[in-house]
Amino acid sequence: MIVDVVLLPDDLRLEHLSGRIVFVFDVLRATTTMTSALAAGAKEIRTFDTLEAAETAAMAFDGRKLLCGEKHTLPPPGFDLGNSPGDYTPEKVGGKTIFFATTNGTRAIHAAMNNPGAKPIAVYAAALVNASAAAAIALQEKEDVTLLCSGSDGQYSGEDLIGAGAVVHALGEFTSNSDMTFLARAVFSAVRDDLPAALRQTYGGRNNLRVGLGKDIDFAARLDVFQTVGKLTGDPATARVAK
Amino acid sequence: MIVDVVLLPDDLRLEHLSGRIVFVFDVLRATTTMTSALAAGAKEIRTFDTLEAAETAAMAFDGRKLLCGEKHTLPPPGFDLGNSPGDYTPEKVGGKTIFFATTNGTRAIHAAMNNPGAKPIAVYAAALVNASAAAAIALQEKEDVTLLCSGSDGQYSGEDLIGAGAVVHALGEFTSNSDMTFLARAVFSAVRDDLPAALRQTYGGRNNLRVGLGKDIDFAARLDVFQTVGKLTGDPATARVAK
Repeated sequence: MIVDVVLLPDDLRLEHLSGRIVFVFDVLRATTTMTSALAAGAKEIRTFDTLEAAETAAMAFDGRKLLCGEKHTLPPPGFDLGNSPGDYTPEKVGGKTIFFATTNGTRAIHAAMNNPGAKPIAVYAAALVNASAAAAIALQEKEDVTLLCSGSDGQYSGEDLIGAGAVVHALGEFTSNSDMTFLARAVFSAVRDDLPAALRQTYGGRNNLRVGLGKDIDFAARLDVFQTVGKLTGDPATARVAK
Repeated sequence: MIVDVVLLPDDLRLEHLSGRIVFVFDVLRATTTMTSALAAGAKEIRTFDTLEAAETAAMAFDGRKLLCGEKHTLPPPGFDLGNSPGDYTPEKVGGKTIFFATTNGTRAIHAAMNNPGAKPIAVYAAALVNASAAAAIALQEKEDVTLLCSGSDGQYSGEDLIGAGAVVHALGEFTSNSDMTFLARAVFSAVRDDLPAALRQTYGGRNNLRVGLGKDIDFAARLDVFQTVGKLTGDPATARVAK
Protein backbone atom coordinates (compact mmCIF):
# COMPACT_ATOMS: atom_id res chain seq x y z
CA MET A 1 0.00 0.00 0.00
CA ILE A 2 1.35 3.41 -1.00
CA VAL A 3 0.42 6.30 1.26
CA ASP A 4 1.06 9.91 0.28
CA VAL A 5 0.41 13.09 2.19
CA VAL A 6 -0.51 16.15 0.11
CA LEU A 7 -0.32 19.46 2.01
CA LEU A 8 -2.42 21.69 -0.24
CA PRO A 9 -5.16 21.01 -2.79
CA ASP A 10 -2.97 22.80 -5.36
CA ASP A 11 -0.27 20.16 -4.86
CA LEU A 12 -2.55 17.31 -6.01
CA ARG A 13 -1.25 15.50 -9.07
CA LEU A 14 -3.10 12.91 -11.13
CA GLU A 15 -1.22 10.02 -9.52
CA HIS A 16 -2.53 11.14 -6.13
CA LEU A 17 -6.08 10.47 -7.35
CA SER A 18 -6.04 7.65 -9.91
CA GLY A 19 -6.79 4.31 -8.26
CA ARG A 20 -6.56 5.81 -4.80
CA ILE A 21 -8.72 6.33 -1.75
CA VAL A 22 -8.54 9.96 -0.71
CA PHE A 23 -9.05 11.18 2.86
CA VAL A 24 -9.63 14.93 3.13
CA PHE A 25 -8.55 16.68 6.35
CA ASP A 26 -9.80 20.01 7.60
CA VAL A 27 -9.25 19.32 11.27
CA LEU A 28 -10.14 22.91 12.26
CA ARG A 29 -12.93 22.46 11.58
CA ALA A 30 -14.95 21.29 8.57
CA THR A 31 -14.16 17.58 8.51
CA THR A 32 -14.34 17.41 12.31
CA THR A 33 -17.77 19.06 12.20
CA MET A 34 -18.96 16.79 9.37
CA THR A 35 -17.89 13.74 11.34
CA SER A 36 -19.59 15.05 14.47
CA ALA A 37 -22.81 15.77 12.57
CA LEU A 38 -22.95 12.33 10.96
CA ALA A 39 -22.13 10.64 14.27
CA ALA A 40 -25.03 12.60 15.80
CA GLY A 41 -27.42 11.19 13.23
CA ALA A 42 -27.53 13.81 10.48
CA LYS A 43 -28.92 12.20 7.32
CA GLU A 44 -26.42 13.81 4.97
CA ILE A 45 -24.24 16.89 4.55
CA ARG A 46 -24.31 18.75 1.27
CA THR A 47 -21.22 20.93 0.88
CA PHE A 48 -21.07 24.32 -0.86
CA ASP A 49 -18.36 26.83 -1.72
CA THR A 50 -20.30 29.91 -0.68
CA LEU A 51 -22.87 30.91 1.90
CA GLU A 52 -25.17 32.03 -0.90
CA ALA A 53 -25.03 28.68 -2.70
CA ALA A 54 -25.87 26.82 0.52
CA GLU A 55 -28.69 29.24 1.29
CA THR A 56 -30.21 28.93 -2.19
CA ALA A 57 -30.04 25.13 -2.16
CA ALA A 58 -31.53 24.96 1.34
CA MET A 59 -34.41 27.22 0.35
CA ALA A 60 -35.27 24.97 -2.58
CA PHE A 61 -35.17 21.82 -0.42
CA ASP A 62 -38.43 20.46 0.87
CA GLY A 63 -37.51 18.37 3.92
CA ARG A 64 -35.99 18.47 7.38
CA LYS A 65 -32.95 20.65 7.00
CA LEU A 66 -30.38 22.90 8.63
CA LEU A 67 -28.39 25.73 7.09
CA CYS A 68 -24.88 25.68 8.56
CA GLY A 69 -21.44 27.11 7.94
CA GLU A 70 -19.03 29.87 8.72
CA LYS A 71 -17.81 33.23 7.61
CA HIS A 72 -14.50 34.50 9.04
CA THR A 73 -14.62 31.57 11.47
CA LEU A 74 -18.04 32.64 12.91
CA PRO A 75 -21.66 31.54 12.27
CA PRO A 76 -23.17 33.66 9.48
CA PRO A 77 -26.25 35.71 10.42
CA GLY A 78 -29.46 33.78 9.85
CA PHE A 79 -27.76 30.38 9.76
CA ASP A 80 -28.97 27.59 12.05
CA LEU A 81 -25.50 26.50 13.13
CA GLY A 82 -21.90 27.66 12.67
CA ASN A 83 -18.89 25.39 12.21
CA SER A 84 -18.49 24.40 15.89
CA PRO A 85 -18.49 20.59 15.95
CA GLY A 86 -19.86 20.38 19.49
CA ASP A 87 -23.06 22.16 18.46
CA TYR A 88 -24.04 19.27 16.17
CA THR A 89 -26.01 17.30 18.77
CA PRO A 90 -28.49 14.48 18.04
CA GLU A 91 -31.33 16.77 19.18
CA LYS A 92 -30.38 19.41 16.65
CA VAL A 93 -29.23 17.42 13.62
CA GLY A 94 -30.82 13.96 13.90
CA GLY A 95 -32.38 12.88 10.60
CA LYS A 96 -31.76 16.21 8.92
CA THR A 97 -30.10 17.22 5.66
CA ILE A 98 -27.39 19.77 6.38
CA PHE A 99 -26.53 22.48 3.88
CA PHE A 100 -22.94 23.27 4.77
CA ALA A 101 -20.91 26.22 3.48
CA THR A 102 -17.19 26.05 4.17
CA THR A 103 -14.08 27.36 2.49
CA ASN A 104 -10.86 25.36 2.86
CA GLY A 105 -12.42 21.92 3.41
CA THR A 106 -14.88 22.22 0.57
CA ARG A 107 -12.14 23.36 -1.80
CA ALA A 108 -10.06 20.30 -0.95
CA ILE A 109 -13.04 17.97 -1.40
CA HIS A 110 -13.76 19.50 -4.81
CA ALA A 111 -10.10 19.26 -5.83
CA ALA A 112 -10.20 15.53 -5.09
CA MET A 113 -13.59 14.83 -6.69
CA ASN A 114 -13.77 17.09 -9.72
CA ASN A 115 -10.42 16.59 -11.44
CA PRO A 116 -11.09 16.02 -15.14
CA GLY A 117 -7.99 13.85 -15.56
CA ALA A 118 -8.39 11.36 -12.73
CA LYS A 119 -11.06 10.14 -10.35
CA PRO A 120 -10.27 8.55 -7.02
CA ILE A 121 -11.92 5.29 -5.96
CA ALA A 122 -13.55 7.07 -3.04
CA VAL A 123 -13.28 10.28 -1.03
CA TYR A 124 -13.78 10.41 2.75
CA ALA A 125 -13.82 13.17 5.37
CA ALA A 126 -11.21 12.47 8.03
CA ALA A 127 -9.98 14.21 11.15
CA LEU A 128 -8.34 13.45 14.47
CA VAL A 129 -11.74 12.51 15.92
CA ASN A 130 -12.05 9.55 13.52
CA ALA A 131 -8.45 8.84 12.50
CA SER A 132 -8.44 5.14 13.42
CA ALA A 133 -11.81 4.55 11.77
CA ALA A 134 -10.48 6.17 8.59
CA ALA A 135 -7.38 4.00 8.71
CA ALA A 136 -9.57 0.91 9.17
CA ILE A 137 -11.38 1.73 5.91
CA ALA A 138 -8.07 2.05 4.09
CA LEU A 139 -6.78 -1.24 5.51
CA GLN A 140 -10.00 -3.02 4.59
CA GLU A 141 -10.07 -1.76 1.01
CA LYS A 142 -6.34 -2.49 0.46
CA GLU A 143 -5.95 0.36 -2.02
CA ASP A 144 -3.32 3.08 -2.21
CA VAL A 145 -4.13 6.12 -0.13
CA THR A 146 -3.77 9.88 -0.43
CA LEU A 147 -4.15 11.98 2.70
CA LEU A 148 -5.13 15.43 1.47
CA CYS A 149 -4.76 18.41 3.80
CA SER A 150 -7.02 21.38 3.14
CA GLY A 151 -4.63 24.04 4.39
CA SER A 152 -5.81 27.42 5.67
CA ASP A 153 -6.27 30.20 3.14
CA GLY A 154 -3.66 28.60 0.88
CA GLN A 155 -1.14 28.14 3.72
CA TYR A 156 0.08 24.78 4.94
CA SER A 157 -1.97 23.72 7.93
CA GLY A 158 -0.22 22.16 10.90
CA GLU A 159 -3.38 20.66 12.35
CA ASP A 160 -4.19 18.91 9.08
CA LEU A 161 -0.69 17.46 8.96
CA ILE A 162 -1.14 16.21 12.52
CA GLY A 163 -4.47 14.64 11.52
CA ALA A 164 -2.89 12.97 8.51
CA GLY A 165 -0.11 11.75 10.78
CA ALA A 166 -2.68 10.15 13.09
CA VAL A 167 -4.02 8.11 10.17
CA VAL A 168 -0.50 7.21 9.00
CA HIS A 169 0.26 6.06 12.53
CA ALA A 170 -2.92 3.98 12.66
CA LEU A 171 -2.11 2.38 9.30
CA GLY A 172 1.01 0.78 10.72
CA GLU A 173 3.50 -0.65 8.22
CA PHE A 174 3.23 0.12 4.51
CA THR A 175 5.25 1.17 1.48
CA SER A 176 5.64 4.83 0.68
CA ASN A 177 7.82 7.01 -1.50
CA SER A 178 6.74 10.18 0.23
CA ASP A 179 8.96 12.04 2.69
CA MET A 180 5.91 13.87 4.02
CA THR A 181 4.23 10.61 5.06
CA PHE A 182 7.07 9.81 7.42
CA LEU A 183 7.15 13.40 8.60
CA ALA A 184 3.41 13.45 9.32
CA ARG A 185 3.77 10.35 11.46
CA ALA A 186 6.74 11.87 13.31
CA VAL A 187 4.86 15.11 13.96
CA PHE A 188 1.80 13.27 15.23
CA SER A 189 3.92 11.12 17.52
CA ALA A 190 5.66 14.22 18.88
CA VAL A 191 2.43 15.99 19.85
CA ARG A 192 -0.06 13.18 20.50
CA ASP A 193 0.28 13.43 24.28
CA ASP A 194 -1.10 16.97 24.22
CA LEU A 195 -3.09 17.49 21.04
CA PRO A 196 -5.11 20.47 22.39
CA ALA A 197 -1.89 22.37 23.07
CA ALA A 198 -0.44 21.49 19.64
CA LEU A 199 -3.60 22.62 17.83
CA ARG A 200 -3.60 25.91 19.74
CA GLN A 201 -0.19 26.75 18.26
CA THR A 202 -1.18 26.39 14.63
CA TYR A 203 -2.34 29.20 12.34
CA GLY A 204 -5.83 27.68 12.27
CA GLY A 205 -5.84 27.19 16.02
CA ARG A 206 -4.86 30.80 16.64
CA ASN A 207 -7.69 31.90 14.32
CA ASN A 208 -10.15 29.97 16.47
CA LEU A 209 -8.74 31.35 19.71
CA ARG A 210 -8.96 34.90 18.37
CA VAL A 211 -12.76 34.62 18.15
CA GLY A 212 -13.17 32.75 21.43
CA LEU A 213 -13.64 29.26 19.94
CA GLY A 214 -11.09 27.38 22.02
CA LYS A 215 -13.82 24.82 22.73
CA ASP A 216 -13.79 23.87 19.04
CA ILE A 217 -10.06 23.14 19.27
CA ASP A 218 -10.65 20.92 22.30
CA PHE A 219 -13.38 19.07 20.42
CA ALA A 220 -11.21 18.57 17.32
CA ALA A 221 -8.25 17.35 19.42
CA ARG A 222 -10.13 14.35 20.86
CA LEU A 223 -8.43 11.46 19.06
CA ASP A 224 -10.65 8.61 17.86
CA VAL A 225 -13.81 9.53 19.77
CA PHE A 226 -15.89 8.62 16.71
CA GLN A 227 -16.12 5.44 14.66
CA THR A 228 -18.04 7.36 12.00
CA VAL A 229 -16.47 8.25 8.65
CA GLY A 230 -18.30 10.33 6.05
CA LYS A 231 -18.03 9.26 2.42
CA LEU A 232 -18.44 11.97 -0.20
CA THR A 233 -20.34 11.43 -3.44
CA GLY A 234 -22.36 13.41 -5.96
CA ASP A 235 -22.65 17.05 -6.91
CA PRO A 236 -22.80 19.00 -4.68
CA ALA A 237 -20.38 16.73 -2.81
CA THR A 238 -22.52 15.10 -0.16
CA ALA A 239 -21.28 13.23 2.90
CA ARG A 240 -23.12 10.20 4.27
CA VAL A 241 -22.06 7.64 6.86
CA ALA A 242 -19.72 5.12 5.24
CA LYS A 243 -19.54 2.78 8.17
CA MET B 1 10.89 39.38 10.79
CA ILE B 2 8.47 37.02 9.08
CA VAL B 3 9.89 33.68 7.99
CA ASP B 4 7.96 31.31 5.74
CA VAL B 5 8.89 27.88 4.46
CA VAL B 6 7.57 26.95 1.00
CA LEU B 7 7.82 23.25 0.16
CA LEU B 8 7.49 23.33 -3.61
CA PRO B 9 8.14 26.02 -6.24
CA ASP B 10 4.49 25.62 -7.30
CA ASP B 11 3.38 26.72 -3.82
CA LEU B 12 5.05 30.14 -4.15
CA ARG B 13 2.63 33.01 -3.88
CA LEU B 14 3.34 36.67 -4.58
CA GLU B 15 3.60 37.51 -0.88
CA HIS B 16 6.42 34.97 -0.56
CA LEU B 17 8.49 37.06 -3.00
CA SER B 18 7.54 40.74 -2.64
CA GLY B 19 9.90 42.53 -0.28
CA ARG B 20 11.53 39.29 0.79
CA ILE B 21 14.89 37.63 0.77
CA VAL B 22 14.55 34.16 -0.71
CA PHE B 23 16.85 31.26 0.12
CA VAL B 24 16.57 28.33 -2.28
CA PHE B 25 17.35 24.82 -0.97
CA ASP B 26 18.29 21.82 -3.05
CA VAL B 27 20.29 20.06 -0.38
CA LEU B 28 20.72 16.92 -2.51
CA ARG B 29 22.51 18.34 -4.32
CA ALA B 30 22.44 21.51 -6.45
CA THR B 31 22.69 24.22 -3.80
CA THR B 32 25.20 22.16 -1.83
CA THR B 33 27.31 21.78 -4.97
CA MET B 34 26.99 25.48 -5.84
CA THR B 35 28.13 26.43 -2.34
CA SER B 36 31.03 23.98 -2.53
CA ALA B 37 32.09 25.33 -5.93
CA LEU B 38 32.02 28.97 -4.82
CA ALA B 39 33.84 28.13 -1.59
CA ALA B 40 36.51 26.41 -3.72
CA GLY B 41 37.05 29.61 -5.70
CA ALA B 42 34.83 29.22 -8.76
CA LYS B 43 34.31 32.65 -10.32
CA GLU B 44 30.61 32.18 -10.97
CA ILE B 45 27.99 29.51 -11.68
CA ARG B 46 25.59 30.03 -14.54
CA THR B 47 22.52 27.81 -14.15
CA PHE B 48 20.54 26.19 -16.96
CA ASP B 49 17.39 24.08 -17.25
CA THR B 50 18.78 21.57 -19.69
CA LEU B 51 22.07 19.90 -20.51
CA GLU B 52 21.81 21.24 -24.05
CA ALA B 53 21.38 24.86 -22.94
CA ALA B 54 24.41 24.61 -20.65
CA GLU B 55 26.45 22.98 -23.42
CA THR B 56 25.54 25.63 -25.98
CA ALA B 57 26.31 28.49 -23.60
CA ALA B 58 29.61 26.93 -22.59
CA MET B 59 30.66 26.45 -26.21
CA ALA B 60 30.02 30.12 -26.93
CA PHE B 61 32.01 31.28 -23.89
CA ASP B 62 35.58 32.36 -24.42
CA GLY B 63 37.24 31.98 -21.02
CA ARG B 64 38.22 29.50 -18.33
CA LYS B 65 35.18 27.29 -17.94
CA LEU B 66 33.74 23.97 -16.85
CA LEU B 67 30.63 22.21 -18.11
CA CYS B 68 28.91 20.53 -15.17
CA GLY B 69 25.60 18.97 -14.24
CA GLU B 70 23.63 15.79 -13.96
CA LYS B 71 21.25 13.54 -15.80
CA HIS B 72 19.35 10.93 -13.78
CA THR B 73 21.62 11.79 -10.82
CA LEU B 74 24.83 10.95 -12.77
CA PRO B 75 27.40 13.05 -14.68
CA PRO B 76 26.35 13.41 -18.34
CA PRO B 77 28.77 12.01 -20.95
CA GLY B 78 31.28 14.63 -22.07
CA PHE B 79 30.73 16.91 -19.06
CA ASP B 80 33.69 18.01 -16.95
CA LEU B 81 31.98 17.36 -13.62
CA GLY B 82 28.73 15.88 -12.34
CA ASN B 83 26.71 17.17 -9.40
CA SER B 84 28.89 15.67 -6.64
CA PRO B 85 29.82 18.58 -4.35
CA GLY B 86 33.08 16.99 -3.21
CA ASP B 87 34.43 17.00 -6.76
CA TYR B 88 34.45 20.80 -6.87
CA THR B 89 37.98 21.28 -5.55
CA PRO B 90 40.06 24.49 -5.80
CA GLU B 91 42.36 22.74 -8.28
CA LYS B 92 39.47 21.95 -10.60
CA VAL B 93 37.20 24.99 -10.29
CA GLY B 94 39.38 27.90 -9.07
CA GLY B 95 38.77 31.05 -11.12
CA LYS B 96 36.51 29.31 -13.58
CA THR B 97 33.01 30.03 -14.87
CA ILE B 98 30.82 26.99 -14.35
CA PHE B 99 27.99 26.15 -16.74
CA PHE B 100 25.67 24.14 -14.53
CA ALA B 101 22.65 22.13 -15.71
CA THR B 102 20.32 20.94 -12.96
CA THR B 103 16.63 20.17 -12.69
CA ASN B 104 14.91 20.72 -9.35
CA GLY B 105 17.21 23.42 -7.96
CA THR B 106 17.24 25.45 -11.16
CA ARG B 107 13.45 25.30 -11.40
CA ALA B 108 13.13 26.67 -7.87
CA ILE B 109 15.64 29.45 -8.58
CA HIS B 110 13.73 30.43 -11.69
CA ALA B 111 10.39 30.34 -9.85
CA ALA B 112 11.79 32.82 -7.32
CA MET B 113 13.52 35.13 -9.83
CA ASN B 114 11.26 35.18 -12.85
CA ASN B 115 7.80 35.75 -11.41
CA PRO B 116 6.17 38.52 -13.44
CA GLY B 117 4.09 39.70 -10.47
CA ALA B 118 6.70 40.08 -7.76
CA LYS B 119 10.45 40.27 -7.44
CA PRO B 120 12.28 39.36 -4.25
CA ILE B 121 14.93 41.67 -2.78
CA ALA B 122 17.55 38.98 -3.30
CA VAL B 123 17.84 35.24 -3.97
CA TYR B 124 20.52 33.06 -2.39
CA ALA B 125 21.52 29.39 -2.65
CA ALA B 126 21.35 27.73 0.76
CA ALA B 127 21.94 24.26 2.13
CA LEU B 128 22.94 22.51 5.32
CA VAL B 129 26.61 23.20 4.54
CA ASN B 130 26.05 26.98 4.84
CA ALA B 131 22.88 27.25 6.94
CA SER B 132 24.31 29.56 9.61
CA ALA B 133 25.97 31.80 7.03
CA ALA B 134 22.63 32.09 5.22
CA ALA B 135 20.88 32.95 8.47
CA ALA B 136 23.52 35.60 9.18
CA ILE B 137 22.69 37.32 5.89
CA ALA B 138 19.00 37.35 6.78
CA LEU B 139 19.68 38.75 10.23
CA GLN B 140 21.94 41.44 8.83
CA GLU B 141 19.48 42.57 6.17
CA LYS B 142 16.53 42.57 8.60
CA GLU B 143 14.03 41.73 5.85
CA ASP B 144 11.30 39.11 5.76
CA VAL B 145 12.50 35.73 4.57
CA THR B 146 11.16 32.90 2.42
CA LEU B 147 12.88 29.53 2.59
CA LEU B 148 12.05 27.83 -0.70
CA CYS B 149 12.51 24.07 -1.00
CA SER B 150 13.11 22.70 -4.49
CA GLY B 151 11.45 19.34 -3.94
CA SER B 152 12.35 16.25 -5.98
CA ASP B 153 10.48 15.69 -9.22
CA GLY B 154 7.49 17.62 -7.86
CA GLN B 155 7.46 15.73 -4.56
CA TYR B 156 8.08 17.31 -1.18
CA SER B 157 11.70 16.87 -0.24
CA GLY B 158 12.59 15.91 3.32
CA GLU B 159 16.22 16.97 3.00
CA ASP B 160 15.22 20.46 1.84
CA LEU B 161 12.85 20.80 4.78
CA ILE B 162 15.68 19.78 7.11
CA GLY B 163 17.94 22.37 5.45
CA ALA B 164 15.28 25.07 5.82
CA GLY B 165 14.89 23.99 9.45
CA ALA B 166 18.61 24.49 10.03
CA VAL B 167 18.29 28.11 8.87
CA VAL B 168 15.14 28.65 10.96
CA HIS B 169 17.02 27.27 13.94
CA ALA B 170 19.99 29.58 13.30
CA LEU B 171 17.68 32.61 12.97
CA GLY B 172 16.57 32.24 16.58
CA GLU B 173 13.49 34.22 17.64
CA PHE B 174 11.23 35.86 15.06
CA THR B 175 7.60 36.36 14.10
CA SER B 176 5.97 33.90 11.74
CA ASN B 177 2.48 32.98 10.63
CA SER B 178 3.61 29.77 9.04
CA ASP B 179 3.02 26.35 10.60
CA MET B 180 5.71 24.89 8.35
CA THR B 181 8.36 27.19 9.80
CA PHE B 182 7.86 25.73 13.25
CA LEU B 183 7.70 22.25 11.80
CA ALA B 184 10.94 22.69 9.85
CA ARG B 185 12.72 23.73 13.04
CA ALA B 186 11.26 20.76 14.92
CA VAL B 187 12.32 18.32 12.20
CA PHE B 188 15.83 19.74 12.07
CA SER B 189 16.15 19.54 15.85
CA ALA B 190 14.95 15.93 15.80
CA VAL B 191 17.57 14.78 13.27
CA ARG B 192 20.51 17.16 13.73
CA ASP B 193 22.53 14.65 15.77
CA ASP B 194 22.69 12.30 12.80
CA LEU B 195 22.10 14.25 9.60
CA PRO B 196 23.76 11.65 7.31
CA ALA B 197 21.30 9.00 8.52
CA ALA B 198 18.32 11.34 8.14
CA LEU B 199 19.30 12.30 4.58
CA ARG B 200 19.71 8.65 3.63
CA GLN B 201 16.05 8.02 4.46
CA THR B 202 14.61 10.68 2.16
CA TYR B 203 13.42 10.13 -1.40
CA GLY B 204 16.36 12.20 -2.68
CA GLY B 205 18.79 10.36 -0.44
CA ARG B 206 17.60 6.98 -1.63
CA ASN B 207 18.03 8.18 -5.24
CA ASN B 208 21.66 9.00 -4.50
CA LEU B 209 22.28 5.70 -2.75
CA ARG B 210 20.79 3.80 -5.68
CA VAL B 211 23.58 5.06 -7.96
CA GLY B 212 26.35 4.69 -5.40
CA LEU B 213 26.60 8.36 -4.40
CA GLY B 214 26.40 7.99 -0.64
CA LYS B 215 29.50 10.20 -0.43
CA ASP B 216 27.42 13.11 -1.78
CA ILE B 217 24.92 12.62 1.06
CA ASP B 218 27.75 12.70 3.60
CA PHE B 219 29.08 15.88 2.02
CA ALA B 220 25.66 17.57 2.04
CA ALA B 221 25.03 16.56 5.66
CA ARG B 222 28.03 18.50 7.05
CA LEU B 223 26.31 21.36 8.84
CA ASP B 224 27.90 24.81 8.53
CA VAL B 225 31.24 23.73 7.05
CA PHE B 226 31.12 26.74 4.70
CA GLN B 227 30.77 30.46 5.37
CA THR B 228 30.14 31.01 1.66
CA VAL B 229 26.68 31.90 0.34
CA GLY B 230 25.98 32.26 -3.37
CA LYS B 231 23.79 35.17 -4.48
CA LEU B 232 21.85 34.70 -7.71
CA THR B 233 21.38 37.48 -10.26
CA GLY B 234 20.89 37.92 -13.98
CA ASP B 235 19.67 35.75 -16.81
CA PRO B 236 20.72 32.95 -16.89
CA ALA B 237 20.58 33.02 -13.08
CA THR B 238 24.21 33.24 -12.04
CA ALA B 239 25.59 32.61 -8.56
CA ARG B 240 28.52 34.58 -7.18
CA VAL B 241 29.91 34.78 -3.67
CA ALA B 242 27.75 37.11 -1.58
CA LYS B 243 29.98 37.15 1.47
